[in-house]
Amino acid sequence: MNFRAEVIAVGTELLLGNIANTDAQFVSEILSSAGVDVLYHTTVGDNAQRLQAVTDIARRRADLIIYIGGLGPTYDDVTKNVVSQAFGRALVFHPEIAQQIRHCFEAVLHRPMSACNLQQAYLPTGCEIFPNPVGTAPGCCFTEDGVTVMMLPGVPHECRHMAEHQVLPWLRRRSQQVILSRDIRIFGLTEPQVQELLAPLMNHAVNPSLAPYAKTGEVMLRMTAKAESEAACGALMSPMLREVRRLLGDYCYGENIPGLEYAVVSLLQEKQRTCAAAESCTGGLIAKRITDVPGASAVFRGGIVSYTNEVKAALLGVPQSLLDTDGAVSEPVAAAMADGARRITGADLAVSVTGVAGPGRDDRGNEVGTVFIGLSTPAGTSVQHLRLGTGRERVRILAAHHALDMIRRYLAGLKD
Amino acid sequence: MNFRAEVIAVGTELLLGNIANTDAQFVSEILSSAGVDVLYHTTVGDNAQRLQAVTDIARRRADLIIYIGGLGPTYDDVTKNVVSQAFGRALVFHPEIAQQIRHCFEAVLHRPMSACNLQQAYLPTGCEIFPNPVGTAPGCCFTEDGVTVMMLPGVPHECRHMAEHQVLPWLRRRSQQVILSRDIRIFGLTEPQVQELLAPLMNHAVNPSLAPYAKTGEVMLRMTAKAESEAACGALMSPMLREVRRLLGDYCYGENIPGLEYAVVSLLQEKQRTCAAAESCTGGLIAKRITDVPGASAVFRGGIVSYTNEVKAALLGVPQSLLDTDGAVSEPVAAAMADGARRITGADLAVSVTGVAGPGRDDRGNEVGTVFIGLSTPAGTSVQHLRLGTGRERVRILAAHHALDMIRRYLAGLKD
Repeated sequence: MNFRAEVIAVGTELLLGNIANTDAQFVSEILSSAGVDVLYHTTVGDNAQRLQAVTDIARRRADLIIYIGGLGPTYDDVTKNVVSQAFGRALVFHPEIAQQIRHCFEAVLHRPMSACNLQQAYLPTGCEIFPNPVGTAPGCCFTEDGVTVMMLPGVPHECRHMAEHQVLPWLRRRSQQVILSRDIRIFGLTEPQVQELLAPLMNHAVNPSLAPYAKTGEVMLRMTAKAESEAACGALMSPMLREVRRLLGDYCYGENIPGLEYAVVSLLQEKQRTCAAAESCTGGLIAKRITDVPGASAVFRGGIVSYTNEVKAALLGVPQSLLDTDGAVSEPVAAAMADGARRITGADLAVSVTGVAGPGRDDRGNEVGTVFIGLSTPAGTSVQHLRLGTGRERVRILAAHHALDMIRRYLAGLKD
Repeated sequence: MNFRAEVIAVGTELLLGNIANTDAQFVSEILSSAGVDVLYHTTVGDNAQRLQAVTDIARRRADLIIYIGGLGPTYDDVTKNVVSQAFGRALVFHPEIAQQIRHCFEAVLHRPMSACNLQQAYLPTGCEIFPNPVGTAPGCCFTEDGVTVMMLPGVPHECRHMAEHQVLPWLRRRSQQVILSRDIRIFGLTEPQVQELLAPLMNHAVNPSLAPYAKTGEVMLRMTAKAESEAACGALMSPMLREVRRLLGDYCYGENIPGLEYAVVSLLQEKQRTCAAAESCTGGLIAKRITDVPGASAVFRGGIVSYTNEVKAALLGVPQSLLDTDGAVSEPVAAAMADGARRITGADLAVSVTGVAGPGRDDRGNEVGTVFIGLSTPAGTSVQHLRLGTGRERVRILAAHHALDMIRRYLAGLKD
C-alpha cells in the first residue's frame, strides 16, 4: 500500500525555536526512501488539548501518522495518553518493558531509576512494540479505522535509531514498490558546477532521478530509482551511475558514505598506510572526524593540536626561526608541522592545518579565512594556500574538508 | 495585542527530508522573544490545493499566520497566489520593486534577469511591503478579518534577515508584552532527578515557567517570564533563579551558554589558567569543543590525540611498563597521559581521556563505555573511572562532557 503520511512533532521547545526539528527531517527522509508520500509536518507544544485537535485533523488527511516526542517519563510528556485516548485504546502496563528499563538503569546507565520512569512501560492495547535499545522510551505502532499510528521518542539519536531499525523495515514489509537511493558525495565543485557538468543527464532524468544538494563546502548528488525490486532499481541505476562517475571524475569521493573521513579511512585501510594530523585553527576537528569512523584506530596514529607557537616548536619541532620570520600562519610552518607530526607519530603520512578561523585577523594581519594545509609523505611535502572566506565555524569545517581531501587524493594516487 | 501564531513553511524539499526546517526555528525564536505565542508549525509542499487547505485551518486557530517560502519566481512557488486568493486580495504590480529586482541582477548578481523574476514584483493589494535587501523576493504583511498574514522568503539568510529587521520591529511596535527566557545548563543530573529536586518550584511555576529539556548527557532548564518590560521580567525571575541555583548547587554550570566548553573557557580566563588535553577515545573532540569557543586560543595551549600506545609513550611519556602491565585503558595510564600533556604543553592543567568507545571491546576485554578521565594540576593528579554505556558516538560525547566538567569543578574550586 502507498501511505499518505503526516509527521506530528510534539514539544514546546520546537515552537519556542530552541531547537530545529531535525527529527521530522530524518523521519521524512526515511519515509520518502520507503516510497511513502509525506504530505504534512505539524508541530504542537506539550499541550494535550492542541495535540488532540491536530490529531483529529491528521486522521482526516493522512493514513499514516507518525508522532515524535512526548514519550518521556515526565508530567509534560502527553503524547501516549492523548493519542491512545483519541484512537480509543487503553494504556496497558508491560512488566517486561519495566524490567528492561530497570536493567538499562542498573547495567548501562549505572544510576538509580526514578519511579516516574515506569510510565514508559505503559503502551496502547494491542500495539506492536518498537524496542529502543539506545534509550528507555519504547516506541509503538497500531492501526485503527484504516489509520496507522506510530509513536517515536524525541531524543534525536533514539528517534533516528528507531526510524532506521523499526519504521523502515516495517514499511518495507508492506510496500510493493522499492525505492533505492544512492548518495554520490562530491568535493571541489559547487552545486551549479555539478549541475553544468551533469546537464545532459539531469534534464531528462526521471527514473532514476538526480537531485544535487549543497552542503557546507561540498555537494551531495542523490540518485533515486523506483521499481518492483532492489535488483530492478540497481539495473535502472547502474548505467547512469557509470555516466555520473565518468562526468564527475575524481571530484566524486564516494557513495553512500557520511563524509570525506570515511573515504580517507577506507583508503588508508586499503593501501595499508597510517596517518596523523597536526592542527592549529581546526583545533582537533580533523582528528575528531577521522576517529568518528569505526575502525579508525588501526590507521590513525595520532594528532597534535598545536594552538600555541611553543607547542608548535616543542612538540612538532617547528623551527623557532620560521615562527619568527614567517609567522605561524605561513607555508613553511604548515610544511614543518606536517613533517613534525609524521616524524613524532611514525605515521606514513601527516596532514597539517594552520590558519585564521576568526573572529578576528591574526597578530600579523592575516585575513580571516587564510589557511595553509600541509601534507607530508615519503614522496615529499606539499602545501595548499587557501582563502576560505569568513565565519569561524565555516572556515574550520572547510579547512578540515580540504585537509581530508588532500589525504584522499594522495592515497588515490591522483595528481592535484 | 497578544498574538497566537502559526508558522506555515512551504516547500516539498522539507517534506522529503532534504533539509531541516531551520527557518521555522529562527522565526519562532524571534516571535517568542517578542511575546508572541507560537502554537503551531505546519509544513506543506509546493501544492496549491494543500496550501489552501492548511490556510483554512490556520485562520481558525491563529490570528498571526507567517508563511515562509514559495515566493520565488518559478512555477512551483505558489504561496503568494494561494494566500492572496484565500484572503480575497488581488496581486498588484509594483514597478519600484521590479526596478530593484532588475538592479539587483545587474549590480549584485551580475547575471541576466529572466522575465519570470518580475513575478516577484506582484504583491497583495494594500499590503505593507517588507523589503529584502539580501535577495530579490520582498516579503509583505496585511490584516484581514482579524488575522494578520506575513509572507517571508524561504532562503535561510533572507528569511533570517527579514525576521530580524522587519517582523521583529513590526511586532515590538504592537506588543505590550515582553518574554524573557533564561537557559540554565545542568550536568551530572538526569531530567527526572532535576524534576525531583525542583518539584517544589516546578509544580506551581506559571510565570516564570520552568521546563527541563534532556540533551545528550546533560539537562537544560528553561525559565521563561512574561511581563510588560524586560526589567519586570527580570524582577519576576530573579527570586526563582536564586532558588533554582540553591537547589541545583554545583550541578548548574552556567546560564545562557551553549555548553560546558564555554563555562571552562570563561573560568580559565577568569582564573588566568591555561589547559591542555590528551585524548585517546575522544579523538580530539575535547580540543575541538574548547577551540569552538572564540578566544580559546588565549587559554588552550594544545592537545594530543594519542590513539596508539607508541604515541602515548613517545609523545606523552607514558611509561611502557604501565602500558604493558595495566593496559592503555587504565587508571595509571590516564594519570600519566594527563601529567604528560601538562608537562609537554606547559599548561597549568591538563585533562586526559582513555577508554573504549566501541564498536567492540578492547584487546584486554574492557567493556564498551569503560572510560578513565585524568586531571593533572599543580595540586596533584586525579582519575575518574566511568562506565558510560554503549553507542560509540554517545560514549565519546559523554566522555568529553565529563572531562570538561572535571576541569570546570577544579577551576571553580569545588570538591568532587
